[in-house]
Amino acid sequence: MLGRLNHVAIAVPDLAAATAQYRTMLGADVTAPQALPEHGVTVVFVNVPNTKIELLEPLGEGSPISAFLAKNPSGGMHHVCYEVDDILAARDHLKTQGARVLGDGEPKTGAHGKPVLFLHPKDFNGTLIELEQA
Amino acid sequence: MLGRLNHVAIAVPDLAAATAQYRTMLGADVTAPQALPEHGVTVVFVNVPNTKIELLEPLGEGSPISAFLAKNPSGGMHHVCYEVDDILAARDHLKTQGARVLGDGEPKTGAHGKPVLFLHPKDFNGTLIELEQA
Repeated sequence: MLGRLNHVAIAVPDLAAATAQYRTMLGADVTAPQALPEHGVTVVFVNVPNTKIELLEPLGEGSPISAFLAKNPSGGMHHVCYEVDDILAARDHLKTQGARVLGDGEPKTGAHGKPVLFLHPKDFNGTLIELEQA
Repeated sequence: MLGRLNHVAIAVPDLAAATAQYRTMLGADVTAPQALPEHGVTVVFVNVPNTKIELLEPLGEGSPISAFLAKNPSGGMHHVCYEVDDILAARDHLKTQGARVLGDGEPKTGAHGKPVLFLHPKDFNGTLIELEQA
């Protein structure tokens, strides 16, 4: 079921500073920031040859990463996202196996415009897993 | 400088349970556990098409992930590892940029038999970064 690792998301308190670090210190290919108000984040993509890292900064009130940053003020790894071929089949399989899907269990449109679901981190060794239909 | 994302490491309290989850719930290709006593961990590789996830369980006294698991009893994302072409050049560049390299700053032989260094998570948004000479 698990396909490519689409991205690793890192929540950061200061996106401009983090972008400069990845660009200058780590010599990485880093995109311009994109505000995604409907997702409550501003994102910068760090492109490495086989996948990407997403640096996320809260945008607006009620950002989904605000609580995480309150708990981890310097930032930290927030989630990993895997591609799946069929997100509804993946969800149904996971539910029969006893895994909890966050929210109402219906896929939402993710930051890349594709259907996504998040799995409960307590069911997966403290790791928040996003599934994205490729 | 940053090359491929070699792996994402996840510390887990129960490797057998985590392996079963990735294999059965997530339908992933998972290897048999390998004990790496010189690194203080037992590791299972979860192979996805473009990279791998390493599930790490402490092995023996003084495991480098014991403190992390004491703080995060259900486990969690522990580090990300990027490949670099020349680890000494990468280190020297990072030091001139003010980044802190953990330990004595000399590359050690990592779990894959290649030279590795770790960067201070406080310098990189709470993310522990491993560099591995490819």
